[in-house]
Amino acid sequence: MSYLFFSFEGPEGAGKTTIVRMLKDYLSEQHVDVVATREPGGIDIAEQIRAVILHPNNERMDARTEALLYAAARRQHLVEKVIPALKDGKVVLCDRFIDSSLAYQGVARGLGIDEILAINAFAIENWMPTLTIYFDIDPSLGLARIRENGLREVNRLDLEELSFHEQVRKGYMVLLDRFPNRIKKVDATQPITKVFEDVWALIEPLIRK
Amino acid sequence: MSYLFFSFEGPEGAGKTTIVRMLKDYLSEQHVDVVATREPGGIDIAEQIRAVILHPNNERMDARTEALLYAAARRQHLVEKVIPALKDGKVVLCDRFIDSSLAYQGVARGLGIDEILAINAFAIENWMPTLTIYFDIDPSLGLARIRENGLREVNRLDLEELSFHEQVRKGYMVLLDRFPNRIKKVDATQPITKVFEDVWALIEPLIRK
Repeated sequence: MSYLFFSFEGPEGAGKTTIVRMLKDYLSEQHVDVVATREPGGIDIAEQIRAVILHPNNERMDARTEALLYAAARRQHLVEKVIPALKDGKVVLCDRFIDSSLAYQGVARGLGIDEILAINAFAIENWMPTLTIYFDIDPSLGLARIRENGLREVNRLDLEELSFHEQVRKGYMVLLDRFPNRIKKVDATQPITKVFEDVWALIEPLIRK
Repeated sequence: MSYLFFSFEGPEGAGKTTIVRMLKDYLSEQHVDVVATREPGGIDIAEQIRAVILHPNNERMDARTEALLYAAARRQHLVEKVIPALKDGKVVLCDRFIDSSLAYQGVARGLGIDEILAINAFAIENWMPTLTIYFDIDPSLGLARIRENGLREVNRLDLEELSFHEQVRKGYMVLLDRFPNRIKKVDATQPITKVFEDVWALIEPLIRK
């Protein structure tokens, strides 16, 4: 089955959420049937799992437990929301997907990309994104943006040391090397309209096909 | 590292809980340092995960989501409770462990033993039980026992069709064939004192070593 499934990756504060919203509006204006989502995406079971992962009191959570919970929430969101939309021929834009686990758990937590890929392969079966856009930005700049704009509360993952977030960025670099056809990097320090242009240049050829 | 880690498997109503309690008392009387547990075992994070799995309203839960959640709860219980006890030289008795996932999700849910083994290998690393006792009983008899004694409330898994529980039993039969050295079968339809004798005959040689 052919489908258009785009995922958006990068640290918090890189502008993913804004770009996904702009992209959704832009595609809608062109009468493209589009669904924008992010895990857990309002899927009740996935929301319950996410609440366990992100609760600030759960600091005893083992890294492997965390990785399995992310895979579980991903599975439920995929099955209830993403796959039905793709089967309806809709374009799906997903703010974070498998590569977040590969970068955060596989690299930054040191569990290994291959091990995290294995449990996520179980979770997503063959539903890999058509294209993944990685928003590259220095993590200290990304975190400063979150604190400044105060758009949401700081959660357990934000509270990790800066060195952790630097490891995450290294993780994405490894993934760019490993999946050069699927993952494309965009410079997220540019003005938002320029970031959007770069993203659109990557997506448009696939939409037009 | 050498350790004594015993797991107990079989359908609900097979008498696992009673036997584990008897075994714990018997070992304690002989001054063996023993810990009896079951997932989620009072581990807060594992309890939270278990609550998501077993909530009767979560009937939309995908089989793969369920399998990942069981693996996550297992991981946390293992790390916080089982491994510290084994490292202290204690004998650990665990009511259900990896084989429940292999039988329930791998066989009865049809996800495949090898796939469930892969995600559980990620969860438990090399901490396999020393010996696993399988309590064999016809599932209709096991379910009748739960309803009769009213010891606990009926949960989402109890409500599955009887044919599901028959598949679970078939699953355990496959596992007995596949892991003949680690898993031993006991006839759970016998009087409880006889079941205990059979279990003790399997465990004693390992304790005495």
